[in-house]
Amino acid sequence: MAAEKRAAAVWNDVQDIRVRSPLVHNITNYVVMNTTANALLALGASPVMAHAGEEVEEMAGIASALVLNIGTLSSRWIDAMLKAASVAGRRGVPIVLDPVGAGATRFRTSTAHRLLLETPPTILRGNASEIRALVSAEQGTKGVDSTRRAEEALEAAQALSRRFNCIVTVSGPVDLVVSPDAVLRISNGHPMMPRVTGLGCTASALTGAFAAVNPSPLLAAAHAMAAMGIAGEIAAARSAGPGSFQVNFLDALYLLQEADIHERLKVEEA
Amino acid sequence: MAAEKRAAAVWNDVQDIRVRSPLVHNITNYVVMNTTANALLALGASPVMAHAGEEVEEMAGIASALVLNIGTLSSRWIDAMLKAASVAGRRGVPIVLDPVGAGATRFRTSTAHRLLLETPPTILRGNASEIRALVSAEQGTKGVDSTRRAEEALEAAQALSRRFNCIVTVSGPVDLVVSPDAVLRISNGHPMMPRVTGLGCTASALTGAFAAVNPSPLLAAAHAMAAMGIAGEIAAARSAGPGSFQVNFLDALYLLQEADIHERLKVEEA
Amino acid sequence: MAAEKRAAAVWNDVQDIRVRSPLVHNITNYVVMNTTANALLALGASPVMAHAGEEVEEMAGIASALVLNIGTLSSRWIDAMLKAASVAGRRGVPIVLDPVGAGATRFRTSTAHRLLLETPPTILRGNASEIRALVSAEQGTKGVDSTRRAEEALEAAQALSRRFNCIVTVSGPVDLVVSPDAVLRISNGHPMMPRVTGLGCTASALTGAFAAVNPSPLLAAAHAMAAMGIAGEIAAARSAGPGSFQVNFLDALYLLQEADIHERLKVEEA
Repeated sequence: MAAEKRAAAVWNDVQDIRVRSPLVHNITNYVVMNTTANALLALGASPVMAHAGEEVEEMAGIASALVLNIGTLSSRWIDAMLKAASVAGRRGVPIVLDPVGAGATRFRTSTAHRLLLETPPTILRGNASEIRALVSAEQGTKGVDSTRRAEEALEAAQALSRRFNCIVTVSGPVDLVVSPDAVLRISNGHPMMPRVTGLGCTASALTGAFAAVNPSPLLAAAHAMAAMGIAGEIAAARSAGPGSFQVNFLDALYLLQEADIHERLKVEEA
Repeated sequence: MAAEKRAAAVWNDVQDIRVRSPLVHNITNYVVMNTTANALLALGASPVMAHAGEEVEEMAGIASALVLNIGTLSSRWIDAMLKAASVAGRRGVPIVLDPVGAGATRFRTSTAHRLLLETPPTILRGNASEIRALVSAEQGTKGVDSTRRAEEALEAAQALSRRFNCIVTVSGPVDLVVSPDAVLRISNGHPMMPRVTGLGCTASALTGAFAAVNPSPLLAAAHAMAAMGIAGEIAAARSAGPGSFQVNFLDALYLLQEADIHERLKVEEA
Repeated sequence: MAAEKRAAAVWNDVQDIRVRSPLVHNITNYVVMNTTANALLALGASPVMAHAGEEVEEMAGIASALVLNIGTLSSRWIDAMLKAASVAGRRGVPIVLDPVGAGATRFRTSTAHRLLLETPPTILRGNASEIRALVSAEQGTKGVDSTRRAEEALEAAQALSRRFNCIVTVSGPVDLVVSPDAVLRISNGHPMMPRVTGLGCTASALTGAFAAVNPSPLLAAAHAMAAMGIAGEIAAARSAGPGSFQVNFLDALYLLQEADIHERLKVEEA
């Protein structure tokens, strides 16, 4: 796709999110709930967080995307995720799965596997360690902020994409967005981003918003990473450290303009 | 009430909160706990969050206000809310109820009803969709960030106020504060406020702080919305987007001065 | 220890944290999870939050420090804390305990006692009211943001230090760091700090990072309070209120330099 055309497509999604304000249902971790809700609002989407067994199905029944994140897992939340995903799956609503910390503990790895098998996501988004841990039995990821290069997880991402027929996004300095037969590489972003907690989770949440408006999961996943990375670049240019970065990142998402995307977008298709 | 006198009354409450630093016990949702705790601290109150069945009664027994918020509900938390509210009711401590997402799921609507019936709040604060959902069986609120005008919920608010003998605040571009026989309209605030998560919840938390120092629930509710809106105006004037708004809002609450209130307060009594 | 030498030792720990990026496992409260994760990242450590019974032992098995914080307690989380602490204890990994709100409710006081007895921490850190409540049966702490002077808890801290053979940090305008046979007083910090929620919890989390790299718990505890206080001073000098303080505090931790420590460090040994 030509650069101009791709930038126009990203911008088109951003405008659609701002106009339609899709309801994004998140069952996510305690650490990032506030951060991801604010990022979704700043982008123009409408976040809701709900995890009670009594209501997750109903909430999933009115949402335009479902985002599942296993960052601070417990057994009841897994039940809620399965219930909500079942409704979303039946309705054809896109599901984004963020396997936070897969590889760090068996509980996280096996829960991520269970969600992949029982309620296959439309888009799976993780860092390289997490994605690799889902194919190899590789353990010992160092927590949740791996700085491994995404490229090291390319084969794992392709295997997962084929096996579960989903898009796989691997975050890193260069993000990979992998379908069974394509690989997109997005080089937007800034080294300060891994120094803020929850930006991976935020990428997953924004992916939900893009998937709510773009019928192509591949493009939704890629456009989300591009918009996120571009807002990150704009924010980093104004920030002394991770504290001011967070503030400027939300402002940048809110103020994101067509010209920003045309000037900064760096996507390559392999 | 004359404008000067009303501004003086708002300022009097702010000063009382700063001097007495009332302990406000919150049983609230995961998304906003940090935000509301910081807003209470910035205003001068003393927040505490506690939800364990083993301690909520004791905590409610030493607090000067209780704020219940159903934003990320689960069954154990409802039990905790009922226990805490029972103690607060017995002690005559003001209770603020925020029915977040009422109308979005039956679980939320019925829980809000249950809390209204079993532990009638002193002040009920929600947006127009939530307040309407509590009187009609109206479902399908779009999540928790409705942008409906408060005026559309006036009749519902009046019905709830009479039925439960409480003050009802309806947030919106113009806030309504409704008692069985009065309506106050507060026009302070800024359109950027709904783009930050948890500002409705923050309004409820601050209402708790004002109710802790002002024996009139009607005035406490109105003064809270006024102080909140004025701090929001000051913050918005300095903010590029919702990220910087959050920062400036806390600073504005902390720095709020008598002259700000006298210059900006917009309250009308019907 | 000479001032120059002590400053060099603090700086040495900061550098070690930045280079080794130790994994700090937190089982902490909902209000501050985001705040403490961001502070650990800004400092250079690698935070992980995990509380599920199914995984806490495994997570504690790969972490370099464990931080337990009872700020929003419930029974399941206590079980998780005991399990994780048992693993950390066996592995010789430092444990930091923050008895948030001890004295405010019997549940908190007794839970803090139980953790002290069953899984003695390497470092106990609280404010004066909390530390006193753990030795006297003193009740009625006003929530969690006591402004009592640390000095009032000196005897209590010494008693706890001897009884549980741990370091006890008492936060306040002047922080005390107490071992069975030494007392260090750190006078860094700024009065705006208690107006931000979770800065006490952040002090405990950062103490975990310092304990992960410094084999002396006494020095780790003291260096953490010093780095925290110095970053707070730098942040406060640029901040209009608690909103901007939070932002500038994270930036200051991230940008902390050797010269800052040499110029500002105020530690006295008694």
